[in-house]
Amino acid sequence: MTGRTIKVGIVGGTGYAGVELLRLLAQHPHCELVAITSRREAGTGVAEMFANLRGKVSLKFSDPAAARLTGCDLVFFATPNGVAMEQARALVDAGVRIIDVAADFRLKDVALWEKWYGMKHACPELVAEAVYGLPEVNRERVHEARVVANPGCYPTSVQLGFLPLLEAGIVDHGHLIADAKSGVSGAGRKAEVHTLLAEASDNFKAYGVPGHRHHPEIAQGLEGIAGRPVNLVFVPHLTPMIRGIHATLYARLTKQADLQALYERRYAKEAFVDVMPAGSHPDTRSVRGANFCRIAVHQPQGGDVVVVLCVIDNLVKGASGQAVQNMNIMFGLPETAGLEQLALLP
Amino acid sequence: MTGRTIKVGIVGGTGYAGVELLRLLAQHPHCELVAITSRREAGTGVAEMFANLRGKVSLKFSDPAAARLTGCDLVFFATPNGVAMEQARALVDAGVRIIDVAADFRLKDVALWEKWYGMKHACPELVAEAVYGLPEVNRERVHEARVVANPGCYPTSVQLGFLPLLEAGIVDHGHLIADAKSGVSGAGRKAEVHTLLAEASDNFKAYGVPGHRHHPEIAQGLEGIAGRPVNLVFVPHLTPMIRGIHATLYARLTKQADLQALYERRYAKEAFVDVMPAGSHPDTRSVRGANFCRIAVHQPQGGDVVVVLCVIDNLVKGASGQAVQNMNIMFGLPETAGLEQLALLP
Amino acid sequence: MTGRTIKVGIVGGTGYAGVELLRLLAQHPHCELVAITSRREAGTGVAEMFANLRGKVSLKFSDPAAARLTGCDLVFFATPNGVAMEQARALVDAGVRIIDVAADFRLKDVALWEKWYGMKHACPELVAEAVYGLPEVNRERVHEARVVANPGCYPTSVQLGFLPLLEAGIVDHGHLIADAKSGVSGAGRKAEVHTLLAEASDNFKAYGVPGHRHHPEIAQGLEGIAGRPVNLVFVPHLTPMIRGIHATLYARLTKQADLQALYERRYAKEAFVDVMPAGSHPDTRSVRGANFCRIAVHQPQGGDVVVVLCVIDNLVKGASGQAVQNMNIMFGLPETAGLEQLALLP
Amino acid sequence: MTGRTIKVGIVGGTGYAGVELLRLLAQHPHCELVAITSRREAGTGVAEMFANLRGKVSLKFSDPAAARLTGCDLVFFATPNGVAMEQARALVDAGVRIIDVAADFRLKDVALWEKWYGMKHACPELVAEAVYGLPEVNRERVHEARVVANPGCYPTSVQLGFLPLLEAGIVDHGHLIADAKSGVSGAGRKAEVHTLLAEASDNFKAYGVPGHRHHPEIAQGLEGIAGRPVNLVFVPHLTPMIRGIHATLYARLTKQADLQALYERRYAKEAFVDVMPAGSHPDTRSVRGANFCRIAVHQPQGGDVVVVLCVIDNLVKGASGQAVQNMNIMFGLPETAGLEQLALLP
Repeated sequence: MTGRTIKVGIVGGTGYAGVELLRLLAQHPHCELVAITSRREAGTGVAEMFANLRGKVSLKFSDPAAARLTGCDLVFFATPNGVAMEQARALVDAGVRIIDVAADFRLKDVALWEKWYGMKHACPELVAEAVYGLPEVNRERVHEARVVANPGCYPTSVQLGFLPLLEAGIVDHGHLIADAKSGVSGAGRKAEVHTLLAEASDNFKAYGVPGHRHHPEIAQGLEGIAGRPVNLVFVPHLTPMIRGIHATLYARLTKQADLQALYERRYAKEAFVDVMPAGSHPDTRSVRGANFCRIAVHQPQGGDVVVVLCVIDNLVKGASGQAVQNMNIMFGLPETAGLEQLALLP
Repeated sequence: MTGRTIKVGIVGGTGYAGVELLRLLAQHPHCELVAITSRREAGTGVAEMFANLRGKVSLKFSDPAAARLTGCDLVFFATPNGVAMEQARALVDAGVRIIDVAADFRLKDVALWEKWYGMKHACPELVAEAVYGLPEVNRERVHEARVVANPGCYPTSVQLGFLPLLEAGIVDHGHLIADAKSGVSGAGRKAEVHTLLAEASDNFKAYGVPGHRHHPEIAQGLEGIAGRPVNLVFVPHLTPMIRGIHATLYARLTKQADLQALYERRYAKEAFVDVMPAGSHPDTRSVRGANFCRIAVHQPQGGDVVVVLCVIDNLVKGASGQAVQNMNIMFGLPETAGLEQLALLP
Repeated sequence: MTGRTIKVGIVGGTGYAGVELLRLLAQHPHCELVAITSRREAGTGVAEMFANLRGKVSLKFSDPAAARLTGCDLVFFATPNGVAMEQARALVDAGVRIIDVAADFRLKDVALWEKWYGMKHACPELVAEAVYGLPEVNRERVHEARVVANPGCYPTSVQLGFLPLLEAGIVDHGHLIADAKSGVSGAGRKAEVHTLLAEASDNFKAYGVPGHRHHPEIAQGLEGIAGRPVNLVFVPHLTPMIRGIHATLYARLTKQADLQALYERRYAKEAFVDVMPAGSHPDTRSVRGANFCRIAVHQPQGGDVVVVLCVIDNLVKGASGQAVQNMNIMFGLPETAGLEQLALLP
Repeated sequence: MTGRTIKVGIVGGTGYAGVELLRLLAQHPHCELVAITSRREAGTGVAEMFANLRGKVSLKFSDPAAARLTGCDLVFFATPNGVAMEQARALVDAGVRIIDVAADFRLKDVALWEKWYGMKHACPELVAEAVYGLPEVNRERVHEARVVANPGCYPTSVQLGFLPLLEAGIVDHGHLIADAKSGVSGAGRKAEVHTLLAEASDNFKAYGVPGHRHHPEIAQGLEGIAGRPVNLVFVPHLTPMIRGIHATLYARLTKQADLQALYERRYAKEAFVDVMPAGSHPDTRSVRGANFCRIAVHQPQGGDVVVVLCVIDNLVKGASGQAVQNMNIMFGLPETAGLEQLALLP
């Protein structure tokens, strides 16, 4: 496999998922980045916008119309929701495989998608075909996929956290709670007041308690894992940090089990899921900039509630790192290629 | 009442609860601060240690042995746990009333206290007498108390959040969950590695999931409110901010009710509990530096789980502000005296 | 003086200077806030936008057209630059006094103002009349003023820091350096990418080194103090904190002097300028939320360079607090009225 | 060269320089980490202390007495000051080369060292031999060195910033000013109050204005570069961020020159010094986790003061990354080996 080079294009790329993809791909041993498009920034050097890429990425943003993406093996969409669905058809027809880091292909129920994302879906038939790119669940199908729907950040952490419990069928499916905390980069690189440092720093709040777009995505995933309907309360919170998600998950046990062994066994072969020793409290910085998910499982006071602590970097395992992991799987590369970097601590 | 001046002493006062007490008392219309003691800092001007007090507080720390606290009307203990229980007896016998901002008198079950705090209790008889100083529950008893056990920060937020539900008897007492997030000042002004900025900033983690000292305090309070045993899962988290607690509370409804009306009615006469409009998400900065508790109540998707969002400043309503509130109650002052300041936002 | 009530209006008020004015005025003993205007937010309760004001400020934003500001004794402009100059004339003619917290009346050289602010000045004749509201320099003139130009945040800290040196005439006027660091609230409550938490947190940078709007304002002030031209290098930096300015000032001594005594003497009667003991390093949090300026003066290694460390809260002494101080002076109130609050520490 | 493996030992390694060395060496293509010592932590797995290393570094801390460091090709000292000087002699005699990341061998003037570091130097003869490991100045001598004194963080940024000016001899040597701002990790992983998040966050202050240990180190370096005495005012500041140094440097030009060209030419062949385009303002995050120094040079208003903006990550180019760079040079490896990672942004 060494020596094989994947020709990669990026549509979008001026946001945080974009710069993170660039950081990872610039250091990937089997990738050639051939084009990155942005209508607004066409002509601007990528490294002019993101100084960390200076000297390493000489590419300029090109106009979407002019970019020859059809010559790519793979195109990542690091765009706002609603863009990939417009362009995917043509690329797929040209034999280009696609990973959408946005949400266009995540929900199988198109009507539900249209309700939550507030627009008509332009390409429902690719929704049906698309594979939900959570490798720990769908690895084989990702390998064959033409279109991969890269999971959202919250959904990645919540699904990986509940997965062993649901597969084992030992918790009450009707009462799952996910109390999730995200760094501010999850809101994207958008000029908005509520994520200004002066607003979000030294501050903490919940948001979207009545409803959040990631709720149906998580529910769909959990139901697929459990093989039956689940009932989930999902409460996201904004945390004054740049990167990181900490999901604190609660479920009621219906059967006793050795939870530590269950988790360790389930993830024993997963390169990017790290089950911490019993009694641990993973911190988000232990995955800062790295494609890991670290998990600890607790049963406080030996009661009937299991508490799962699950951390990821929302921009890596929760977005661009997972996208690269999916790329590796799709093209038969070692799954860890380009993803070996350790978290930055402190 | 105007014109009445309370002579106040502080034991300790070199920590965060101490400097916050000083800030509040220095601006209190009916207080005279006569002594503040610290063995280690005896002779140091209070304002040398805390520059925000320069020009307003000219007092020096005095040696505990030399300080004539028995001339005070009231002594606050802003000390590590285990100090107040040694000195309280003598002061009470001298007619001095006491508010312990630490934990010595909070747990009625002395054996349980000794287990969690790792020492023998020096003064069990005052434990029995002490009043738990949550004004919204015990206002009348606080008024008469000689010894007030000022509640912990987490316990204040969790109890105020669950209170209306438990009083109304409409939730499953056997499955309460409190997912609480605290700023780092909650750990105190102590030289420790894990709360260094380089460790705790841009980071998020749970801690104490197997057990935390505030668990029995909260449980005792909730059981008192509910009038029966409760089962609580309590998961505290460390948040990269200085001040603030955000408690996210989950309970299963056993009866339907107009939750918004229930909360508004319960707290209608409370000066320091603000029930936000339906659909709100209170943020911790809205109480930064102020003695308020802001609460919102949600019932996501109309399901059977109620979600309560409750914020306080851990150093104010969660410590020194509540202590001043208790002082006001004890001495028949207007409950809001010296506590009218608005939160600092941004 | 007690009992006198000033009728106050605010134009604008949806930004940080606005909410800070509201916080201060809501607690001011001699003020009645009669109107606050915002075209965009007309009808919205002020406390809906700024939750810290809930229960204390019941006013709603009103449409500028409808607001009867001419009934006020004083109107604050907490608006973007260019608004006050359009409305000031009519108010002044109606006998209303004005404090502009923005920059419209700060530069006496209208051409220079137009160059830096990129618009034609609408009201040059009031520029000529306006008094620059740095009380420590212009107290008497502020008392009589109809229009006060409230100083900028950087200019306040740099002028107060250099003032004693320039008045004493003991430094080289041709080589003054101001290396200033500001919290992010200085950029205002505006939706912009570069001040997002994800951009500005855990990060530090200079900006505006080739030129910054506050440079001519500072230079004008310093020249007024020195009575001759000065040459100033001014380098502002963005610091990952909400509030605070730390100005580090460098000047070459042309005469030896007891610098500590010089500073203490100059500011002995100033309520809001605190000269720290020799050897001190003031920190910005010691003035967080308070109207103080704290200063320390150093002469490292006894060399010929004097280093002045000067901190203010950019929203208080650097904006709204100073505006209230100016109001107090204009109306003959005690200069500290409503400004007695201590800094929030930690 | 490929295939060559350096056997490396680390003495110390429980601090931030240590964990950063481990992060870099774990990913270095030509290194084998054979031992890491810590008396206090002997027996503890390195990855138990630093969770980011889980799964990648299986080494345990070993007792210094038992560790066979003499079998190493190179030993890094990531210890408190005063440790390397005690152990260096024996290792050097055994043919082991040494890089001291602490300060023991930095100052050629032993008496000066003893004054600033408050202890007697145990090994003055190795001070004389040691090479100051600033590769951009001493590359050839580092290649041959048995003992490399790895520069301090502030000294690296200040020297690289002033270097082209001093070599060109176009500034007044008697009036150099370095106004430097550091993230809190520069203070080390030590339990101290002043670097707690609750103290240092949302706060900014200068420190050590009367004198700082890095002053003589910087002065020695600048004098070596200039070939004559220099006079430097150095003011360090503590910034509320984890990593990063921003040095803002001021010098008076004695000759005009094309400063941009001067800097670009001087650093054209340096892999780790990036001269930004004219008019730039480098931010510290653009080097977060990376071994780069980014520099911009300004001449505000065309005056006679040159302003240099210089950023590094204090733990990478300011400590462990530079140590690895020195190792690469010492052993004839490509200078960028193991140091190709891009900065983490955002």
